[in-house]
Amino acid sequence: MDERSSSETRGKHIRCRAAVSRKPGEPLVIEEIMVAAPMPHEVRIRIICTSLCQSDVTFWKMKDFPGIFPRILGHEAIGVVESVGEDVDEVTEGDTVIPTFMSDCGECVDCKSKKSNLCSKLPFKVSPWMPRYETSRFTDLKGEVLYHFLSVSSFSEYTVVDIAHVKKIDPSIAPNRACLLSCGVSTGVGAAWRTANVETGSTVVIFGLGSIGLAVAEGARLCGATKIIGVDLNPDKFEIGKKFGVTDFVNSGNCGDKSVSQYVLLKITLWLDSSLCTFLYLIEQVINEITGGGADYCFECVGLASLVQEAYACCRKGWGKTIVVGVDKPESKLSLTSFEVLTSGKTLMGSLFGGLKAKSDIPILLKRYADKELRLDEFVTHEVRFDDINKAFDLLIEGHCLRCVIWMDK
Amino acid sequence: MDERSSSETRGKHIRCRAAVSRKPGEPLVIEEIMVAAPMPHEVRIRIICTSLCQSDVTFWKMKDFPGIFPRILGHEAIGVVESVGEDVDEVTEGDTVIPTFMSDCGECVDCKSKKSNLCSKLPFKVSPWMPRYETSRFTDLKGEVLYHFLSVSSFSEYTVVDIAHVKKIDPSIAPNRACLLSCGVSTGVGAAWRTANVETGSTVVIFGLGSIGLAVAEGARLCGATKIIGVDLNPDKFEIGKKFGVTDFVNSGNCGDKSVSQYVLLKITLWLDSSLCTFLYLIEQVINEITGGGADYCFECVGLASLVQEAYACCRKGWGKTIVVGVDKPESKLSLTSFEVLTSGKTLMGSLFGGLKAKSDIPILLKRYADKELRLDEFVTHEVRFDDINKAFDLLIEGHCLRCVIWMDK
Repeated sequence: MDERSSSETRGKHIRCRAAVSRKPGEPLVIEEIMVAAPMPHEVRIRIICTSLCQSDVTFWKMKDFPGIFPRILGHEAIGVVESVGEDVDEVTEGDTVIPTFMSDCGECVDCKSKKSNLCSKLPFKVSPWMPRYETSRFTDLKGEVLYHFLSVSSFSEYTVVDIAHVKKIDPSIAPNRACLLSCGVSTGVGAAWRTANVETGSTVVIFGLGSIGLAVAEGARLCGATKIIGVDLNPDKFEIGKKFGVTDFVNSGNCGDKSVSQYVLLKITLWLDSSLCTFLYLIEQVINEITGGGADYCFECVGLASLVQEAYACCRKGWGKTIVVGVDKPESKLSLTSFEVLTSGKTLMGSLFGGLKAKSDIPILLKRYADKELRLDEFVTHEVRFDDINKAFDLLIEGHCLRCVIWMDK
Repeated sequence: MDERSSSETRGKHIRCRAAVSRKPGEPLVIEEIMVAAPMPHEVRIRIICTSLCQSDVTFWKMKDFPGIFPRILGHEAIGVVESVGEDVDEVTEGDTVIPTFMSDCGECVDCKSKKSNLCSKLPFKVSPWMPRYETSRFTDLKGEVLYHFLSVSSFSEYTVVDIAHVKKIDPSIAPNRACLLSCGVSTGVGAAWRTANVETGSTVVIFGLGSIGLAVAEGARLCGATKIIGVDLNPDKFEIGKKFGVTDFVNSGNCGDKSVSQYVLLKITLWLDSSLCTFLYLIEQVINEITGGGADYCFECVGLASLVQEAYACCRKGWGKTIVVGVDKPESKLSLTSFEVLTSGKTLMGSLFGGLKAKSDIPILLKRYADKELRLDEFVTHEVRFDDINKAFDLLIEGHCLRCVIWMDK
């Protein structure tokens, strides 16, 4: 990879390689593109490595808006500042930074409030543009505009990111670990830590043991939860889950058409206390038994509205919290009744980026990793060169991978 | 009314007058009935006065189960203990008590926990029986069983209530004020105070300015909310609301078929800062303007699932809480999507009996009334003799009444 000195490139377009997603579901094309200089409040970053998140795959496949092409995907990364635009004081050339899809401007009511991580100055949206100016910094060599993704677009040797989406970090941490805090691990750990505020000694159920679900388990473990129950269709996830504090497993099996009724009988394999038993049983009955009346916290990490209901049903009456972490289609409705919300004493909430404020919370997680409290190493199951980025997509889709790190310079 | 001394009646059936609801929607029949002696853990109470709550009307009209007849309705009351069953230490003959539809056994995990007011020993249900033994203490003079209502059945000169549903209080408080804490005012004030935990300086929207909604306003005022916005179809409620701290009013007008879409344009009359303006506008846009981005807390006090969505939409992104207080039909579904729960940062919760623990929280409210902080007097708009109980139903249904107190001995 071409690591030009900033003095050569500052203020100019940079020609570099990017993996361009040109058509929905088709392999990314590594090609040369032009990356414009950062505008005021923007930073141009040389990406060191990036990892593949399920949301990249979702938007890569998406045929209709907000799916849009040609686009540079990728939003979980780490890099070095190549140059900065005007009015950028927070970072300077050569700083190691983590870009994040969530803004933390530090100035708006939300960023100043302890109660919210939803910056209202540059609010979260799945836009094809840079967040502040609604324009692109990318063109291909024919001059065609390439769209941005989640304000990061890290599948490129160079990208431009708004300063509100950039956090300077200590460069001593291994980049193929730090990049996980850019999205996935932060989202999961934060959902347990910041959004749900899991109490010591509590019980937790996690629907879906992908990377996000496992990161929720890790967060719940760090918060001192004593029972962390993983629910997944794939029994391979059970052994993996143990590394992240999962104590009990429920195989949700073939659940049938749950949209018809949440009370349809489900064939469930219950792996509990290391004994493998098969029951014709409702998930909520199984969870009820394991937890003695329902879990204190239930996290939906698959992205299915029907599972949110299942999670709600598995919560402890009186105080259980259901936290939506998975991303379902915007039109997918929950099937909750007003009456059950009224009478159950349960709380329903969502967690975007784990409720974290990027600039103040990422350093805390980095320190906990350095102190050997937070596990990151175990999430990285694969590493590939940038040229093999399509292999990372295959691995994630096949389900054999938690995080595949893509190295730009290898 | 016949106030027999306990020595005459203790352990025996009492023959007394009750207002029996014999058929759905038909006037109650004042007739003589037999009230059995209390079983262990039960208390027989001579009712001093009772007030009519919307839930009595709802179950009086209800043709199908859990509507059931013949039944003795009424659940908001105050009385004096006539006699106690075995294993009752908490109260004794002659004590002034408030019965409550919610149990507070003091022994179960929930009652011992600060997080829940949903007693798990005698859980809330709309049963036609006494909560502990699933039997009735009432028969008519032909020997036919009369059903109980919400564990209280106060439309009778004498009733039997489980000790877990009875709180002894200081007899110095006026009974036609104290009885309001048995259900309605406690429910509303508690929803703001205990469930939502309204913060000083916050903004609150209340959908429905009936007694419960006004009690929410009163609770929000006591918690130090600076903006309390009432939303109602009846413009008469606006002036009434001011007595309870309502600062702004929105007349939701003719809302059309909101079940089709929450984005249908609503004709709204906005009475704001004492100026009456008419807009063709969405409720959420109006609330957004008044609050500068959405309310910190929205309370649904009408009992319509469609209004819960409206309330959710009116909440401040990032931290807004929607609290369901109104009772809709058990099958009425919310139309929320998983995606909006995920991305909004908003919380949805319910409040049954205002999240109050009857035995510890009612005394706090009584003290606040005695200290002239909590308003109760303004809720009592009508008082009738027991013989005129059907007039209380007419008044509440006609909407001219907040609380009508029914005196047993007048």
